[in-house]
Amino acid sequence: MEETFVPFRGIKNDLKGRLLCYKQDWTGGLSAGIRILAPTTYIFFASAIPVISFGEQLERNTDGSLTAVQTLASTALCGIIHSLVGGQPLLILGVAEPTVLMYTFMFNFAKDRKDLGHKLFLAWTGWVCVWTALLLFILAILGACSIINRFTRVAGELFGLLIAMLFMQQAIRGIVEEFGIPHRENPEQTALQASWRFGNGMFALVLSFGLLLTALKSRKARSWRYGTGWLRGFVADYGVPLMVLLWTAVSYIPVNDVPRGIPRRLFSPNPWSPGAYSNWTVIKEMVNVPPLYIVGAFIPATMIAVLYYFDHSVASQLAQQKEFNLKKPPSYHYDLLLLGFLVILCGLIGIPPSNGVIPQSPMHTKSLATLKHQLLHNKLVSTARKSISRNSSLSQLYQSMQEAYNEMQTPLVYQLPSTLGLKELKESTVQLASSTGNIDAPVDETIFDVAKEIDELLPVEVKEQRFSNLLQALMVGGCVAAMPLLKKIPTSVLWGYFAFMAIESLPGNQFWERILLLFTAPGRRYKVLEDSHATFVEIVPFKTIATFTLFQTVYLLVCFGITWIPIAGVLFPLLIMLLVPVRQYLLPKFFKGAHLQDLDAAEYEEAPAIAYNMTFEVCFLNLTLAHHGFVRSSGCY
Amino acid sequence: MEETFVPFRGIKNDLKGRLLCYKQDWTGGLSAGIRILAPTTYIFFASAIPVISFGEQLERNTDGSLTAVQTLASTALCGIIHSLVGGQPLLILGVAEPTVLMYTFMFNFAKDRKDLGHKLFLAWTGWVCVWTALLLFILAILGACSIINRFTRVAGELFGLLIAMLFMQQAIRGIVEEFGIPHRENPEQTALQASWRFGNGMFALVLSFGLLLTALKSRKARSWRYGTGWLRGFVADYGVPLMVLLWTAVSYIPVNDVPRGIPRRLFSPNPWSPGAYSNWTVIKEMVNVPPLYIVGAFIPATMIAVLYYFDHSVASQLAQQKEFNLKKPPSYHYDLLLLGFLVILCGLIGIPPSNGVIPQSPMHTKSLATLKHQLLHNKLVSTARKSISRNSSLSQLYQSMQEAYNEMQTPLVYQLPSTLGLKELKESTVQLASSTGNIDAPVDETIFDVAKEIDELLPVEVKEQRFSNLLQALMVGGCVAAMPLLKKIPTSVLWGYFAFMAIESLPGNQFWERILLLFTAPGRRYKVLEDSHATFVEIVPFKTIATFTLFQTVYLLVCFGITWIPIAGVLFPLLIMLLVPVRQYLLPKFFKGAHLQDLDAAEYEEAPAIAYNMTFEVCFLNLTLAHHGFVRSSGCY
Repeated sequence: MEETFVPFRGIKNDLKGRLLCYKQDWTGGLSAGIRILAPTTYIFFASAIPVISFGEQLERNTDGSLTAVQTLASTALCGIIHSLVGGQPLLILGVAEPTVLMYTFMFNFAKDRKDLGHKLFLAWTGWVCVWTALLLFILAILGACSIINRFTRVAGELFGLLIAMLFMQQAIRGIVEEFGIPHRENPEQTALQASWRFGNGMFALVLSFGLLLTALKSRKARSWRYGTGWLRGFVADYGVPLMVLLWTAVSYIPVNDVPRGIPRRLFSPNPWSPGAYSNWTVIKEMVNVPPLYIVGAFIPATMIAVLYYFDHSVASQLAQQKEFNLKKPPSYHYDLLLLGFLVILCGLIGIPPSNGVIPQSPMHTKSLATLKHQLLHNKLVSTARKSISRNSSLSQLYQSMQEAYNEMQTPLVYQLPSTLGLKELKESTVQLASSTGNIDAPVDETIFDVAKEIDELLPVEVKEQRFSNLLQALMVGGCVAAMPLLKKIPTSVLWGYFAFMAIESLPGNQFWERILLLFTAPGRRYKVLEDSHATFVEIVPFKTIATFTLFQTVYLLVCFGITWIPIAGVLFPLLIMLLVPVRQYLLPKFFKGAHLQDLDAAEYEEAPAIAYNMTFEVCFLNLTLAHHGFVRSSGCY
Repeated sequence: MEETFVPFRGIKNDLKGRLLCYKQDWTGGLSAGIRILAPTTYIFFASAIPVISFGEQLERNTDGSLTAVQTLASTALCGIIHSLVGGQPLLILGVAEPTVLMYTFMFNFAKDRKDLGHKLFLAWTGWVCVWTALLLFILAILGACSIINRFTRVAGELFGLLIAMLFMQQAIRGIVEEFGIPHRENPEQTALQASWRFGNGMFALVLSFGLLLTALKSRKARSWRYGTGWLRGFVADYGVPLMVLLWTAVSYIPVNDVPRGIPRRLFSPNPWSPGAYSNWTVIKEMVNVPPLYIVGAFIPATMIAVLYYFDHSVASQLAQQKEFNLKKPPSYHYDLLLLGFLVILCGLIGIPPSNGVIPQSPMHTKSLATLKHQLLHNKLVSTARKSISRNSSLSQLYQSMQEAYNEMQTPLVYQLPSTLGLKELKESTVQLASSTGNIDAPVDETIFDVAKEIDELLPVEVKEQRFSNLLQALMVGGCVAAMPLLKKIPTSVLWGYFAFMAIESLPGNQFWERILLLFTAPGRRYKVLEDSHATFVEIVPFKTIATFTLFQTVYLLVCFGITWIPIAGVLFPLLIMLLVPVRQYLLPKFFKGAHLQDLDAAEYEEAPAIAYNMTFEVCFLNLTLAHHGFVRSSGCY
């Protein structure tokens, strides 16, 4: 992406790129068939559960002005609009924790003013949203997102890990609170006696750890040794919602003597309760806000605009990491412009606005990569089996697999079909052929273990489409109607789910993997090399990796510390943005360019000429590993 | 072992064999140094914790006549004597569940008789022990243990799995009881109100699952990727006791408002409490037992004798399975004779007798195999490193490793040193050399990854000695003095420990592994082949394995069902003994001899001549696997 600040150019480029693949965004989604429901439900839960819990938090903080109904409505509305007319459909929108913090701060300010008060609070936030949207328009039009390239991995992954820490903090805090007396409740009731509170807290521990452990296990079901393939696939795809159901059912087991209210369950008014919909007509009251406050709304608006600009862009960036090998173009400027419109819309109907969320957005891409992998896998396996049953030679087998692979490639009008995946496929297969000695003899499954080989040959690809995003947003919308059902979920299951999300967001985060590497015994580092791993593990000296990671960890802890400061906490994105100049001007003074390039590739830095050495080292390594039987011979000899 | 019923011949043979290695039993233990403490503590906990809990059970069932003090004393006393003068020092003795059941039955009988009653109960059991011992003497002298060969794997493993089920049942029952009102306690106290009982039960779930999961994790610490080697080794060796400490500490966290008695803790009188030692002088009262009851004591004595004959022999057999490659001879007859003396001794001092226990005995051997592996590993690694630093060629490296391996072999006077391990070592190394192309060039660690290669080369060997058994028995004896400390352990931690022991006893049990195989998806069975596995997996058709396993499972469930019948339950060993004729006469009618030989080798059946086919199949398999990069080339080409 070129760094240009010519007005509208960024938006125009984005629109041009995405319009060319807009039709394919829908046809591609349709072609996946029923299987699209797996990533959809997965993301729906990841999106809805935090939003519900943030809604509960807002309800407490705003004396009931805003509830889970409003946060769900905002998430659903913005999600639907974004999936229909947004740029990058991998981006998931939702009401996020920083928004909740900002709204709490604004409520505390408004409720004490005589001429604003509880009554005009939502009308005033309407004005804040108007200002915020204006600022976002200006940022989008002037091409502020062109500098997204300077948001290197170091900033994005630090932000990702910070969010994971905040989720985990919420999980721990939630469980601790299960032992205490909730604010809202009458402390005289049976369920809040010291004895029952103790039981409630212990039950919460059981439910939340139960959910966490079983949800984590179920995600790995595909590699289980037991059960049929169908069952394993089903558990892996729908395990998390199933576990929420299971542990909610478990929460209903204790009946004798156990009073109502144990375990504690979600609290939220039904959308049809009186007072739950006073916000929708807030636009009529906006004219009643005193002019001074209309102007003053500009101050919180700047903070929210900075926050959204950063949050939205980084969520989008993390959903489009290089490792995913995305084929379709990004759309930072246009999406920021659209976010502006969404913010105004939400402001005028008195609901908190949504923005791009972490970790749901990268989770979305990851689950679509799994989907694409399965689709490719099934297609190629059936092709290979057919080919083998026709007594094909290995070269014919390759031919038919190549054709099948071509068929599955996304046909994009604006670029030639990529041949990279193909080439890799060919190389691996031919190499396999030569290692067995005969390229023209008929193959059978003992030589070419179809299901297994194909899994190893397939590159990472993502099913890029709009269906999963639209469907999950619609399902979030459905939650508003399903409130009475949702209220059966124990809060402790929620806390377990928060912990699950924090842990699920870690794999693939190189910062996290480097932290683990620091704790890996030197004698066991070869195990890291056996698994798939980033190149820095092989090339950059361990000491440099350690120094870099320690610096990043200290920075992370400072950011985390900032979030604990009551109001300034909202500004933690500024601290992460500060990483951009730090990375560009300060870090190169302490680290070698080549190392920095491997640890944190930046497009503005030229790639150093280490190609030859790298090849050599990798080959040497493969030789050593091959000798130990770890990897198939690598072709370097 | 020859099947002979000439009086005293079995005992004489046993004594001859064991006396020849008696000195080495002690010197070998000493040579292991401080490391012997790892298996010792491991077995001490596995031995002491169930014994304490059985003691609690006895206390309830015998109105306090017998308590944990007596069960601990019996376990310690018998353990010390057996480790000093017993035949097979791998066998662990302890008061077992069937003994508890028998004593409960006898107490219920005695307490209602006017001329026996509570007062003469222990004196009467003294007479039962005398008769039992006599029967055991006769069995031992007449060579009843010669038929131990007919107790094939099918019976031993079924018994092992049954014990695992009983342990798991105890764990579940224990946790369920945490929600109820204990018999002994005053139901009016605060801790037993419905609300606190709920809390106590939930807390018990947290503590027991916490112990179970962390103990299982810690046993696998050696293969962790994180932490230094020292730490990993320490956690693997002492993780289970550490976890008992940790979760006991956790149980003290809730203090505010939580009444005494939550969580519930071990209940036992201190050995110095009045009345806790009335049993020791029971011999004086034995003359007061009416003659009719002295004669009548013969009836329960026969049941106990059958039980002990079976239990003791099978525990010993499971501790000496073929897979362990033991070098020293068994000692079934002599050990049964000694058990007779131990039973009399216990009877006369009024404590319940101990016998060989499952799963502790095989756990003991397994932990000593780990110890031996580490000792061999350390020695060979340091030898290889020294050799490499002298720029040795691969053949010199092999030479020095061979010498080191020889040095570590147990020098047994009665047999030539085995060369099997050596041969395997040589073959693997030479094969390694030829695969790298040059046998005389200096090797370095990139070619020969010392620590890793050696682990794969080492055969299973067991550090056979008497020290670990003696030390663990002494530690159990120490528990009697440490009663006030033991009483700090929550009962829920105990239930978690029972579940842990049940699960720990499963690996290595082929019956269990076949059950798992039934649930393994056909497409994933190759994964079983990748791991170390028994030959039947490759040779016997899956259908035959399935039929055989289903038959065994049904038999197991019937045995388990029998244990639920109040008094007849004690006779479940008879049902397992029935498996011996079933195996010998019935099963060969339904299964091919060759298959039966692989599923359940019996010495009395001739090995079928499938040697050639087997080699062929194994080689073919290795070829296939090697092709897929799973195993190093197998030398079959």
